[in-house]
Amino acid sequence: MNTFGNIFRFTGFGESHGAAIGGVIDGMPAGVRIDLDAVQRELDRRKPGQSAITTARKESDTVEVLSGLMDGVTTGCPIGFIIRNENQHSNDYDQLRTAFRPSHADYTYTAKYGLRDHRGGGRSSARETATRVVAGAFARQALEQLGISVQAYTSQVGPITVGADYTALDLSLTECNAVRCPDPAKAAEMEDFILGVKREGDTVGGVVTCVVKGAPAGLGDPVAGRLGAQLAGAMLSINAAKGFDYGMGFDGVGMRGSEAIDLFRRDGSMPPRTLTNHSGGIQGGISNGEDIYFRVAFKPVATLMQDVETIDAEGNPVTLKAKGRHDPCVVPRAVPIVEAMAAIVLLDAVLMNRGSRIENLKFKI
Amino acid sequence: MNTFGNIFRFTGFGESHGAAIGGVIDGMPAGVRIDLDAVQRELDRRKPGQSAITTARKESDTVEVLSGLMDGVTTGCPIGFIIRNENQHSNDYDQLRTAFRPSHADYTYTAKYGLRDHRGGGRSSARETATRVVAGAFARQALEQLGISVQAYTSQVGPITVGADYTALDLSLTECNAVRCPDPAKAAEMEDFILGVKREGDTVGGVVTCVVKGAPAGLGDPVAGRLGAQLAGAMLSINAAKGFDYGMGFDGVGMRGSEAIDLFRRDGSMPPRTLTNHSGGIQGGISNGEDIYFRVAFKPVATLMQDVETIDAEGNPVTLKAKGRHDPCVVPRAVPIVEAMAAIVLLDAVLMNRGSRIENLKFKI
Amino acid sequence: MNTFGNIFRFTGFGESHGAAIGGVIDGMPAGVRIDLDAVQRELDRRKPGQSAITTARKESDTVEVLSGLMDGVTTGCPIGFIIRNENQHSNDYDQLRTAFRPSHADYTYTAKYGLRDHRGGGRSSARETATRVVAGAFARQALEQLGISVQAYTSQVGPITVGADYTALDLSLTECNAVRCPDPAKAAEMEDFILGVKREGDTVGGVVTCVVKGAPAGLGDPVAGRLGAQLAGAMLSINAAKGFDYGMGFDGVGMRGSEAIDLFRRDGSMPPRTLTNHSGGIQGGISNGEDIYFRVAFKPVATLMQDVETIDAEGNPVTLKAKGRHDPCVVPRAVPIVEAMAAIVLLDAVLMNRGSRIENLKFKI
Amino acid sequence: MNTFGNIFRFTGFGESHGAAIGGVIDGMPAGVRIDLDAVQRELDRRKPGQSAITTARKESDTVEVLSGLMDGVTTGCPIGFIIRNENQHSNDYDQLRTAFRPSHADYTYTAKYGLRDHRGGGRSSARETATRVVAGAFARQALEQLGISVQAYTSQVGPITVGADYTALDLSLTECNAVRCPDPAKAAEMEDFILGVKREGDTVGGVVTCVVKGAPAGLGDPVAGRLGAQLAGAMLSINAAKGFDYGMGFDGVGMRGSEAIDLFRRDGSMPPRTLTNHSGGIQGGISNGEDIYFRVAFKPVATLMQDVETIDAEGNPVTLKAKGRHDPCVVPRAVPIVEAMAAIVLLDAVLMNRGSRIENLKFKI
Repeated sequence: MNTFGNIFRFTGFGESHGAAIGGVIDGMPAGVRIDLDAVQRELDRRKPGQSAITTARKESDTVEVLSGLMDGVTTGCPIGFIIRNENQHSNDYDQLRTAFRPSHADYTYTAKYGLRDHRGGGRSSARETATRVVAGAFARQALEQLGISVQAYTSQVGPITVGADYTALDLSLTECNAVRCPDPAKAAEMEDFILGVKREGDTVGGVVTCVVKGAPAGLGDPVAGRLGAQLAGAMLSINAAKGFDYGMGFDGVGMRGSEAIDLFRRDGSMPPRTLTNHSGGIQGGISNGEDIYFRVAFKPVATLMQDVETIDAEGNPVTLKAKGRHDPCVVPRAVPIVEAMAAIVLLDAVLMNRGSRIENLKFKI
Repeated sequence: MNTFGNIFRFTGFGESHGAAIGGVIDGMPAGVRIDLDAVQRELDRRKPGQSAITTARKESDTVEVLSGLMDGVTTGCPIGFIIRNENQHSNDYDQLRTAFRPSHADYTYTAKYGLRDHRGGGRSSARETATRVVAGAFARQALEQLGISVQAYTSQVGPITVGADYTALDLSLTECNAVRCPDPAKAAEMEDFILGVKREGDTVGGVVTCVVKGAPAGLGDPVAGRLGAQLAGAMLSINAAKGFDYGMGFDGVGMRGSEAIDLFRRDGSMPPRTLTNHSGGIQGGISNGEDIYFRVAFKPVATLMQDVETIDAEGNPVTLKAKGRHDPCVVPRAVPIVEAMAAIVLLDAVLMNRGSRIENLKFKI
Repeated sequence: MNTFGNIFRFTGFGESHGAAIGGVIDGMPAGVRIDLDAVQRELDRRKPGQSAITTARKESDTVEVLSGLMDGVTTGCPIGFIIRNENQHSNDYDQLRTAFRPSHADYTYTAKYGLRDHRGGGRSSARETATRVVAGAFARQALEQLGISVQAYTSQVGPITVGADYTALDLSLTECNAVRCPDPAKAAEMEDFILGVKREGDTVGGVVTCVVKGAPAGLGDPVAGRLGAQLAGAMLSINAAKGFDYGMGFDGVGMRGSEAIDLFRRDGSMPPRTLTNHSGGIQGGISNGEDIYFRVAFKPVATLMQDVETIDAEGNPVTLKAKGRHDPCVVPRAVPIVEAMAAIVLLDAVLMNRGSRIENLKFKI
Repeated sequence: MNTFGNIFRFTGFGESHGAAIGGVIDGMPAGVRIDLDAVQRELDRRKPGQSAITTARKESDTVEVLSGLMDGVTTGCPIGFIIRNENQHSNDYDQLRTAFRPSHADYTYTAKYGLRDHRGGGRSSARETATRVVAGAFARQALEQLGISVQAYTSQVGPITVGADYTALDLSLTECNAVRCPDPAKAAEMEDFILGVKREGDTVGGVVTCVVKGAPAGLGDPVAGRLGAQLAGAMLSINAAKGFDYGMGFDGVGMRGSEAIDLFRRDGSMPPRTLTNHSGGIQGGISNGEDIYFRVAFKPVATLMQDVETIDAEGNPVTLKAKGRHDPCVVPRAVPIVEAMAAIVLLDAVLMNRGSRIENLKFKI
């Protein structure tokens, strides 16, 4: 299944080395003026070749929107788009026609489907996430009109971390460095660390933290559609993601209830606000009007610039030569992908929520 | 939305203090002989009042199956069931008619729906998870026929942990203690710890680890239905769950790719097996035939046996007296819930997978 | 699959001769005061044993609502309910344990599932439609608050028809006779006709026409969720239904475009209204504010009060003795079922529509 | 919503006069060798400008497949495709910028979305059905490998009909004439009739009958996914479709049960076969192994080659001049669309059915 969302739905297609990737954005509310340059800018944030710490592979990644707009405004009809693939070195992948790379999807796709597109990882390549960034960019523009913003940043690379408290950071600095870490000193450390790992032909993992501001209380549909559950599902669908937590998350395990509890302000202000936000803006699966924040853990990717001992489809030992152009750390480029998936989940939650009360349904034409 | 799954689907209903909770299990394959006693046993594992470390609230939690079986065998038709509520002390909750408990769903349900059932938390109570345990018990019996088993255990309570390597544990000991921890010494420590916290009128969090054995390679539907994503969504839909990771998870962030990589055995054995399992049995969103394992982080629940300063629906300060009967640590009772949700996801993934190859679709009558 | 709808969703369960039938109504907007007596009255309209022209089988069909209401008002949480089965003459069905009745689901359920509940048709019995009537009654009460009404009637029995123009009928007379035909003279003819057919041990088909008034322009989601498509799917899911058309329908085939076109009034009134309504209130898959009307064709049911020559599961010839208590014509009892399914589709369309424009999504708390 | 199907799913996009139309085919089983020329041939059958009785508008309608194939074989990954729009006379539509054509979607789209793409009907144009034909062509190639064929033909144009019994026709003659009617004499009559109507600047309706051969018993998922319900929903989603029936359909209303019943052959042959097929191959919502056949009624389209008195968005009277190039009768070009939608429904039903029995789920790798 290649569809995300319930009412706001994105269905993607495309492999790393096919003719194009693309998708259909369905359920986009009508009447949103779209800044297509802003959509392209999101895509540019994800694209390879941006700096020394990302893959040297160069792709222009130009989005072509094919439907759903009239004079630059969404019409409520589905938005189809494509991004042509280019700069394909398919020959780089000839040795993969029969071999299974370890910790990749080569074997599992073959086990499931009986065959696979071996060029550049085919559908299992992170290349398809470019289409999610486009969909997320549309969602983000709708959310902006509702006062909801989504911002992610690199909070950890290998052992280097900026700490759990995002309120102590100036998130406007995130895009000022190649790592996308809003703490300039830590960013420099992280960059050095990644370059060191790269020199060794190795890779390293990291964590992306994401903060959603401006979400009103009431988003999320218990019990299957709890907002935390939807975010978790969306984040774990990203390549190389291995973990998710929100609010106090895994750190909360060691806390006492009396510490972790978010007391309400008792200053009479309405709607109610809390003094702390260990809940991460979600209580009972529904947003409570505070910031929503969560973390996504990314593994060190398995594509090393080293020779690798592995097997082929018949189980025979083979040695794969280091080839191709890969990221030593996916986290910097994962930042816009996390934002995109968050925006998709949030806009869908807004749309799902409009039916929660009968009084919202009264109409007049 | 109260429906889990795509083909194997469970739709639940019911509040803590209504007449009954229950649900509909749809998409259950025909021809599975059901042991209803085993279903009830799963429910008994979740029910309150089992030991000194769980709530003293007593409920018999008897499931009544209403449809979908013929002579004890599933017919392929939906299985309806109910569990009557009993032992309700609704008066315990009178003070909640207007007050919002901090870090509960009281405010968020009101914000979303304009009103709420305040008795015992209504729909936001973990009581509804009993219905998921029933659905999971049906899924588990189908999975057993396919050679797939699901087992969870308590791996952490507050600061006490059994370590990440489940293969070093004898999981058959899990049910031998009230904490559901397979390491007897650690279990005793955890139990003492929980009792201490309880005496203070406080609560504590923990972690449940779950292991799925026997899953064949090929389960999971990239990219939106990646197996890790589906498990994450299912787990984060459980009350008090704040985090999820699988395989190396958050710990993998600090690893190098060269360490984290799961090399294939090169002994010619087929299907391919790996030497290590940092991937947690899932690669590219599809199972690879190794054990699937993951963790779920639970927060310390917010229902304390202490007076709490909070506000009412108009924003006025109120003090809530400690009342009711609650768990000082939800983790032991969360173990069967995690198993149930895992079983639901796995059976659904099996069913979704049957259409992945044309050769599976050839039929003859 | 046993779930109808997208946001307003009903999932049913239950067989003719199991312990109970029931279901879960999900996505019901919060804040609707429910008249449970009115729900029961809808059920009474569908129940057997109402008159000489329906089956003599008597069932009290009492609905028990188990969740989702607080002080008689919907909370936005799922509404679970059951209807206990009673008055079961399961022995009537012993000869069906191995035999396949012609033009029933006996063979097809066996072919699909490998086994079947043979008692009273099991899940394939029209008995399950009682649960849809309950769900429809809830939907109807929400629709009433939005000014939308749904009314069906018997428009044809065998060769006797009241004509296509529903505006020439006084629909308030529908419930005045056992046939549920608003034309008293035709109703008497139909009743005589059905009694004659019954005396012969035979059955006859008919048509139900349904009219939805008060639906605003804008309901329906092209292209897959066109309102006509959703109504068609819902109606053809009713037992014994074999056809559906709306507006001019099959009769429109013989018309010219110039005749069939619904010209707008040119009197300046807004919103726009049309002079005629051949479209049946739906244009381009979206309601246009005019009455929505459609027809559902029901076959003569295959359960005859005659001996029937058929085969058993091994292909051997067997003769089935006439037994059981059955309707000679299902159409009068189908009227409330058609209304229920229409109400489910309409409320779902209303809920889906709230996301169609960004201006509907602006919120403030 | 622009997605059809459950496991085999097609999501389309595109307007009449945008850059391109296209879509994503998801859930296509892996391992099907695709004849892309055959896909294009299906598209050619639908395209305008084929003969004197269709619109003179010429479009090459060339499909470009962008993903999901490896060496011409499906990989199980989503198949994205586009069809560039060309030969656009957008100026033909300038008068529609503010005016509402009667019996079109101009007003309803505006009522729903607040704005619309007025060029050529935008999304409401039948142009989008070209994308369904592509998806259907893929489905058809999978069905062929399972021995299932789908064939439709024109069975009625205005008052001229070939009769209900499709077995009396030689369906291989269907493509021999412009009307797509397998009875050559009736085809000639129909063609004359259409040309006469065209000369008057008028339009006429018709009926398409479709026959599915080779479907095994067991397809369809009661009760919401009854095969008849799914076909009905799919067919009524086609532009200009106003009615659907299957088997005896509306004609069955006048029959007695004793006439309509499909007795089993009692010659011992297994699987069971019936002597007649009034059921249309579906009993209890599940296929029974006989031919599935159904009819779809199409209205006379509302685009006349005559001046039309109508209103604009402010309710002011306007007169629309006859312009553009339109079909006097859509039925001949609807034939491949009906086939495509039938193929989509059937393949989805096959895929859904694989989970119906536990014995189908046993696996070994």
